[in-house]
Amino acid sequence: MRLPVLVFVCCTLWACVVRPHCAEAAKARHFKWEVSNMFWSPDCEEKVLIGINGQFPGPTIRARAGDTIHVELKNALHTEGVVIHWHGIRQIGTPWADGTAAISQCAINPEETFTYRFVVDKPGTYFYHGHYGMQRAAGLYGSLIVDVAKGEEEPFKYDGELNLLLSDWYHESIHTQMVALSSKPFRWIGEPQSLLINGRGQFNCSLAAAHTTGAKQCAAVNRQCAPVVLPVQPNKTYRLRVASTTSLASLNLAIGNHKLTVVEADGNYVDPFVVEDIDIYSGDSYSVLLTTDQDPSSNYWVSVGVRGRLPKTAPALAVLNYRPTRASKLPALAPPATPAWDDYAHSKAFTYRIRARAGTPPPPSTADRRIELLNTQNRMDGHIKWSINNVSMVLPATPYLGSLKLLGLKSTLAAARPAETFSRSYDVTRPPANPNTTVGDNVYVLRHNSTVDVVLQNANALAHNTSEVHPWHLHGHDFWVLGYGDGAYRGDAADAARLNLRDPPLRNTAVIFPYGWTVLRLVADNPGVWAFHCHIEPHLHMGMGVVFAEAVHRVGKVPKEAVSCGATATALMAGDHL
Amino acid sequence: MRLPVLVFVCCTLWACVVRPHCAEAAKARHFKWEVSNMFWSPDCEEKVLIGINGQFPGPTIRARAGDTIHVELKNALHTEGVVIHWHGIRQIGTPWADGTAAISQCAINPEETFTYRFVVDKPGTYFYHGHYGMQRAAGLYGSLIVDVAKGEEEPFKYDGELNLLLSDWYHESIHTQMVALSSKPFRWIGEPQSLLINGRGQFNCSLAAAHTTGAKQCAAVNRQCAPVVLPVQPNKTYRLRVASTTSLASLNLAIGNHKLTVVEADGNYVDPFVVEDIDIYSGDSYSVLLTTDQDPSSNYWVSVGVRGRLPKTAPALAVLNYRPTRASKLPALAPPATPAWDDYAHSKAFTYRIRARAGTPPPPSTADRRIELLNTQNRMDGHIKWSINNVSMVLPATPYLGSLKLLGLKSTLAAARPAETFSRSYDVTRPPANPNTTVGDNVYVLRHNSTVDVVLQNANALAHNTSEVHPWHLHGHDFWVLGYGDGAYRGDAADAARLNLRDPPLRNTAVIFPYGWTVLRLVADNPGVWAFHCHIEPHLHMGMGVVFAEAVHRVGKVPKEAVSCGATATALMAGDHL
Repeated sequence: MRLPVLVFVCCTLWACVVRPHCAEAAKARHFKWEVSNMFWSPDCEEKVLIGINGQFPGPTIRARAGDTIHVELKNALHTEGVVIHWHGIRQIGTPWADGTAAISQCAINPEETFTYRFVVDKPGTYFYHGHYGMQRAAGLYGSLIVDVAKGEEEPFKYDGELNLLLSDWYHESIHTQMVALSSKPFRWIGEPQSLLINGRGQFNCSLAAAHTTGAKQCAAVNRQCAPVVLPVQPNKTYRLRVASTTSLASLNLAIGNHKLTVVEADGNYVDPFVVEDIDIYSGDSYSVLLTTDQDPSSNYWVSVGVRGRLPKTAPALAVLNYRPTRASKLPALAPPATPAWDDYAHSKAFTYRIRARAGTPPPPSTADRRIELLNTQNRMDGHIKWSINNVSMVLPATPYLGSLKLLGLKSTLAAARPAETFSRSYDVTRPPANPNTTVGDNVYVLRHNSTVDVVLQNANALAHNTSEVHPWHLHGHDFWVLGYGDGAYRGDAADAARLNLRDPPLRNTAVIFPYGWTVLRLVADNPGVWAFHCHIEPHLHMGMGVVFAEAVHRVGKVPKEAVSCGATATALMAGDHL
Repeated sequence: MRLPVLVFVCCTLWACVVRPHCAEAAKARHFKWEVSNMFWSPDCEEKVLIGINGQFPGPTIRARAGDTIHVELKNALHTEGVVIHWHGIRQIGTPWADGTAAISQCAINPEETFTYRFVVDKPGTYFYHGHYGMQRAAGLYGSLIVDVAKGEEEPFKYDGELNLLLSDWYHESIHTQMVALSSKPFRWIGEPQSLLINGRGQFNCSLAAAHTTGAKQCAAVNRQCAPVVLPVQPNKTYRLRVASTTSLASLNLAIGNHKLTVVEADGNYVDPFVVEDIDIYSGDSYSVLLTTDQDPSSNYWVSVGVRGRLPKTAPALAVLNYRPTRASKLPALAPPATPAWDDYAHSKAFTYRIRARAGTPPPPSTADRRIELLNTQNRMDGHIKWSINNVSMVLPATPYLGSLKLLGLKSTLAAARPAETFSRSYDVTRPPANPNTTVGDNVYVLRHNSTVDVVLQNANALAHNTSEVHPWHLHGHDFWVLGYGDGAYRGDAADAARLNLRDPPLRNTAVIFPYGWTVLRLVADNPGVWAFHCHIEPHLHMGMGVVFAEAVHRVGKVPKEAVSCGATATALMAGDHL
């Protein structure tokens, strides 16, 4: 997957000769952000969240492919560190800008400023979010939208754009949530209180209720939780960008009386297909085309509901507002019902249908290595953990990128390397026979340019008849999603037959369904240290992740601000005393 | 005030020749602590606080004068830095161990360990607490008690000891409190919900109520908020150590039917005097002697009430339990009423009565410099601040000690030095005529071994007819409290006549009364950078402090862990890139 890089290199170096439009296209875009706590009422209930420049969600970054983004980020929190991860941006050549605390950089201390500089090499729908503790769930996120380079064209036509960043919302602070999840005895954080669309929801005073029973519209009194209105002109085609940065919830989005044509997933074009609704797991992004071909005297509900967990959270609603109809005119039709939470057949049908658009680079036909990752829920000394091959990930005091680059493999990593297969006799349909687990660094060292298959294997959790959905997100890469299966992966001919080497979609996030498996293929062509983890915030907090360390010796000079902590800072400051 | 140092040096170096008992007395005492968030119910309402080794309050440190304390402190918070200040310990020769974030050291990052090593050179009643953001108010505190060196004797006799660490308690998290205090518009945090004795209180189900009305005793159901019982034998004398680490509340302590003889204040012996009750401001510590000469078939209430603010917080109660009477037997007498909150005459009578015990070193008879600090409440761009000479203190990203030592004065401090006097025409009896203020570093550079007088001048706050009590605490030093006065300090003969150069008490904390002034004298004989601030946590957060930078060129080698952040880390890590 070097093609986009080459395009970028071309643009910046030889641009004016080879592609005359590039020179003007590749811009440096500067942003000055301050991250701080503030009072906000995302769902009409006030609490403290993490905002950027006084906004929630943070400002939308809009750029063109090939541009360099400079975000000068000041941490104005009082006692907490902070980082921002640019979800879906591969950070080719800039792994220290990936924004993962304890992996790619030292957390930015209060009052300090760190500048993220990276190229957005590929058009698409992305977002950014905190990646330290559970700060994403505290509201530290925003949209990042990359248009095609000037002179280039998207492979589909549309007249306008709408952007929906979806999230879920808890009334407990993330501090309390983190303590609960780490407690002995374990305390589960429960379901979110609200779903948010572009940072707005309505707790305990839903628009649906307003629609169906005429109940109070609490949103009306507070601009911060006013319902989102999507203004459209009749008989046009809109590109609806949808991304999910939920902490827990898997979502489904439907729009009353409108079909959706899926054209992009995670910044990669897909073979267009038409659906009534789309599933969006945490970490996913999509573009869907929507044609405003319905009765223009009416408005229509956009409905976002919970999938994969018995929903205790009311659907979020927005209004598709056919201009010049008033935005406040309630839609004539009831909000579309999203599919039943446990209709996995529906979910699989949607997910399996996603294929690469013609022209997408195909995967290498064979892999050099296969890493199997068994996902289990376990116990450890009274705590509850998620483990990968029976090891629950803990992050180090000194970030991996700096410590691997400066201090070397041996000083940084546990002597025992993590397992890359699991027992063929493991029964994925039952709770673990021995639920005890341990913690470890879960670092897999990948050979440069090797092709790696990853098998994500789901299993039964600690409770009987329970297996959850987990959307796994990889940093620094897109991967091909070769296939899915139910039950235990065997790697036999039958499993191989389920893999698609012809037109598998490129993505950065892929789901494992309950009791199922998913096979991904990636090329380790991006030197750096990359997190690969379940994108569900409490699951990651409970250890559900691994790290890919990739040709770290080929990483360029790491800015010292990224290693100014822990053992790397100590090593760089000569002598024991000043 | 070098005497105790010399004693210590003597003990460690020439001990066996000169003072044979010293050699065995001076011990290294090792502690291994882990700071983490945990659920706790200090006043029977559960919330998240900061504990040490799973305890709240933190473990009591007990040592002998001359001992070296080693606290290996691991930060097990999720995303917050941490430091611990050893309140009252002068840190002679170890200013980097003073535990003030942004002043003496870099905050300890999550998962990192910092070892505090310092000598407790002087017997007394001390405590320790967080000194980053408002972490003290999150419960990060404990007692530190230093006995006389082996072979030495206290200058008073007692049969047993009791220890009371007093605090106040808010149900809002400190994160919410910090946001509120920094918000625009400003939001005041209000009065604490409870007062705690040794970390225990009873919200909404007070023991007093149980006593007077037979209402429920909610404390009984939860060991974490069970009332403190102080077991005593009849006809003995007890040393009651009392310290206050409240966030806001000024306190008064009284014990039914028992008089108290004050013998120690802030680790210095005082001329004994007998009172019915004692005032304790945040940052203060006292020892009082108590003789158990009352009817032994009864128990007696220890009552702690609020002074100086219209109290909205119920008094805290503990039981003085005359053995073998059952601890659960309710005292026959009602809890002693602490004085009216605004009975300042009572407070002044108590405070003015504190004199040094004979043998305490007297102050130098003259000062080399006088620094006047006018305390005002101000507005800044919609925020509310406390200012000193109209500048509200903000702390830097790089701690002063490291930056002054390594990068020098010019690179660290503002070119304009802070004012050290205020206009004689300032009307302290009215709200500020021009309430606007600015922020600054408020660093005063003190010449080595110079004698400095500090005049703390109180004034009217923003509201009419309002002037608050502020207990000012100095790090790295004891000072002599030369005197107090009402109204504006003029420095004239009348004011001079109010100063006591004969037997002023040595302390580390001194109060300014509403509309009044207090004069302190100190000798700048301890190279380091020392915070000097109002010990009320929200006031410090709002800028009510200054910094004394004292002969930093004489500071020894600073351990690199104390400077491993900000500009000092950058400077120490050679080159711009690795």
